[in-house]
Amino acid sequence: MNAQESLQIEMACTRLVNQFSLFNDARNFEALSQLFAADGAFARPTDPENFVSGRDGILAAFQARPHDRITRHIISNIVIDVVDAEKARGVCYATLFMAPVDAEPAMFGVKANSSQLIGEFYMDFVQTGDGWKIARQTGKIILAT
Amino acid sequence: MNAQESLQIEMACTRLVNQFSLFNDARNFEALSQLFAADGAFARPTDPENFVSGRDGILAAFQARPHDRITRHIISNIVIDVVDAEKARGVCYATLFMAPVDAEPAMFGVKANSSQLIGEFYMDFVQTGDGWKIARQTGKIILAT
Amino acid sequence: MNAQESLQIEMACTRLVNQFSLFNDARNFEALSQLFAADGAFARPTDPENFVSGRDGILAAFQARPHDRITRHIISNIVIDVVDAEKARGVCYATLFMAPVDAEPAMFGVKANSSQLIGEFYMDFVQTGDGWKIARQTGKIILAT
Repeated sequence: MNAQESLQIEMACTRLVNQFSLFNDARNFEALSQLFAADGAFARPTDPENFVSGRDGILAAFQARPHDRITRHIISNIVIDVVDAEKARGVCYATLFMAPVDAEPAMFGVKANSSQLIGEFYMDFVQTGDGWKIARQTGKIILAT
Repeated sequence: MNAQESLQIEMACTRLVNQFSLFNDARNFEALSQLFAADGAFARPTDPENFVSGRDGILAAFQARPHDRITRHIISNIVIDVVDAEKARGVCYATLFMAPVDAEPAMFGVKANSSQLIGEFYMDFVQTGDGWKIARQTGKIILAT
Repeated sequence: MNAQESLQIEMACTRLVNQFSLFNDARNFEALSQLFAADGAFARPTDPENFVSGRDGILAAFQARPHDRITRHIISNIVIDVVDAEKARGVCYATLFMAPVDAEPAMFGVKANSSQLIGEFYMDFVQTGDGWKIARQTGKIILAT
């Protein structure tokens, strides 16, 4: 694999990482589930050993979550390691701001919960017939403000 | 458009997004205004329908703001969608830390305001004779800590 | 230098910036020191004029720090300027969350200190026989919450 191909894989996987959180926060769980490979697996950082599998399973797991929160997952420190032309791994930090859906209005936006969570996501990526996808994602919460 | 060209557009637009906030926080409004196309338009996330147009108009709008704040706009989750060889769109999150210019000294730096704003920027980009530029930018505040 | 080469340099340096903080937070100081050129220099943002030099010197300086803190450096706004085929410069923001190693457990993770630091890193990069490395890094703390 040449440098150019490696760069394209890094960018494709970086994009998946950012899209995951954008779709999650927008509650676009259908689009989120399509970021995963057909047999992809996902575990929440708050329950990191408990994987759900397959796009339908991941979609159902997200739809089953309480719908009473506004979230913004601030993604940073993305590093992608290209393993070969069909596999890559990645890590990033996520800082989670939350509010109840009926949060009181602030001067701008609504008032967030006072506590934020700072954690990590760990991803395996795979090249599929439909481009790079997330093969497996889990995470870990490190700090709470 | 091949993958290589698409990658270059993604990186050029990502750079514009980061530079916008670096220049804004450094109060280098001349450089900030040059990130926009000659007929570019900008609206603040706190007043997202109220666009100013043209580099001179954008420069004047930034210079007219109160000069009594230190700001740092933490930019994350940048996703760029390449439309064609001359157009792209982007979204990102911004977490805004602020302090008055006469803030009390902390052990390191100065004491920030207790409240931060978490919002989103939405950008249209355009290829010009002088490289990729911001054609239109607005935003929205989502949460306030 | 063509656009493709410039892009590869930007990505290689962006990777160094993110790895620096991942290795620092993971207390993998051996790996951190290898991100620097053999004659690389580093100064902490809290003491930005006080440089240590060489990989062994940088390793020793990190090992000598108090080992009683959990840290997460949230890196954002990375902008890399390619100077030529062998030199580049970069800037980024860093938001530092900390906790004592014996911090009280939270519902998830452990309780962070109430104060965070928001600062900047400034980097010079150099192409070596072993790829791009950090030639010089310093920084500055801007705000403390």
